[in-house]
Amino acid sequence: MTRAQLIELIHQRKSFLCVGLDTDPAKLPAGVDMLTFNKAIIDATRECCVAYKPNLAFYEVLGAQGWDILHQTIAYIGDQHFTIADAKRGDIGNTSTYYARTFFETLGCDSVTVAPYMGRDSVEPFIQFPGKWAIVLALTSNPGADDFELNHVNEEPLYKEVLRRVSSWGSEHNTMFVVGATRPEMLAEVRKIVPNHFLLVPGVGAQGGSLSEVVKYGRNADVGLLVNASRSILYASSGSDFAEAAGAEAKRMQEEMERIVWQ
Amino acid sequence: MTRAQLIELIHQRKSFLCVGLDTDPAKLPAGVDMLTFNKAIIDATRECCVAYKPNLAFYEVLGAQGWDILHQTIAYIGDQHFTIADAKRGDIGNTSTYYARTFFETLGCDSVTVAPYMGRDSVEPFIQFPGKWAIVLALTSNPGADDFELNHVNEEPLYKEVLRRVSSWGSEHNTMFVVGATRPEMLAEVRKIVPNHFLLVPGVGAQGGSLSEVVKYGRNADVGLLVNASRSILYASSGSDFAEAAGAEAKRMQEEMERIVWQ
Repeated sequence: MTRAQLIELIHQRKSFLCVGLDTDPAKLPAGVDMLTFNKAIIDATRECCVAYKPNLAFYEVLGAQGWDILHQTIAYIGDQHFTIADAKRGDIGNTSTYYARTFFETLGCDSVTVAPYMGRDSVEPFIQFPGKWAIVLALTSNPGADDFELNHVNEEPLYKEVLRRVSSWGSEHNTMFVVGATRPEMLAEVRKIVPNHFLLVPGVGAQGGSLSEVVKYGRNADVGLLVNASRSILYASSGSDFAEAAGAEAKRMQEEMERIVWQ
Repeated sequence: MTRAQLIELIHQRKSFLCVGLDTDPAKLPAGVDMLTFNKAIIDATRECCVAYKPNLAFYEVLGAQGWDILHQTIAYIGDQHFTIADAKRGDIGNTSTYYARTFFETLGCDSVTVAPYMGRDSVEPFIQFPGKWAIVLALTSNPGADDFELNHVNEEPLYKEVLRRVSSWGSEHNTMFVVGATRPEMLAEVRKIVPNHFLLVPGVGAQGGSLSEVVKYGRNADVGLLVNASRSILYASSGSDFAEAAGAEAKRMQEEMERIVWQ
């Protein structure tokens, strides 16, 4: 999916919601298997969101069977949503190329999250595929962000060095950045370095980040945000009405987005 | 596998060779499938090495089928070698726990490589499993290491900050570090910070690192090294004698190790 297509979807649906398909095998409602769960969640949230983001860990724990479920889930989503393989990959060049082929060709995703630690030749293979995207970790929403990301490199926090360098390798047409909602005021700092890139923002919902703060500090002329919610949507109800509850929570978020950005 | 068991294997076989099972689907000899190739390589190198390290990228590109091959490969190796899932994972705590279960329980590996960018809660789940190991990226062997790993944090290169912090979260009984052979003199710097930890050293062989330099700067009282070679062993011959050629190359490396360390 191209940048223009993504922006069009966002304005069409008045939403920049990404639903995180972190489908925890231990949290499935009684009698519901993982693929059935995913399909029901997708059907219930389709109209309210523009992206889906399965996190690989929850699928890989089931081995080959998990990969089959992931593959079928991506196929079920179709081409009217931006798909993100949240895999946080990154390796030496030749190996990263295989990871890129895995997520873009074998699974057919639009994008994959990438860990920047190993530098340029670990990131570049992900931005060589037309219409495909690398979403590079910059400032994550977890407590461990303090350990390295916020540590100072050349008088600046490491995440800024990551934004600066990585944005020079690709463009806003093939690269996005992960910036957590749990530190929304830092989105203003991020926008000074990458005014035009899309940002994938986790941490709204179960992790406590505020949507209006994220928009206030992170929005650009194209909206430029994909705000992810996982647990607050997937587990809105643990009963047999899980899909209905997920749909209602996604709708609530979409309406909040519409109110903040389009009204 | 415990530290004591690994050290015993090393002295028994007079080898600290790790064979990297980076089995590239595009480089298989005519008429040989991936699992048959792996089994033949394992049979030909078993006596000369102490560890096997499949890199996940080459398996994931085949989707569910690749995971089956990986699973069967790990099972075929058995319990007389240390197994490393070279997966470079790392995510927020709950998600990293699922990755740890994937590699330690679903696949049955002894260890997994971990990217440190997201900090403490992304690494700790991997060191909570008795007899299992996190092998954390510190200074990798690729050109991109210059971008962030060798960038200065608090007046020191980032990789030193990684060594210092990560080594304080676990111990030499559950944590190792990746340090590339392409900068062997830096192994002396590494040893000042982590004198007792095992180091996984890629970059000898096809990438040009020297074994004697690695031993000179990186060895400790327990040897403390796992030196990886992938392409130079796997593709020693591209013909039907590939296993024989791989065995001969592994034997050559084991003999060089024996000469340097045990004679």
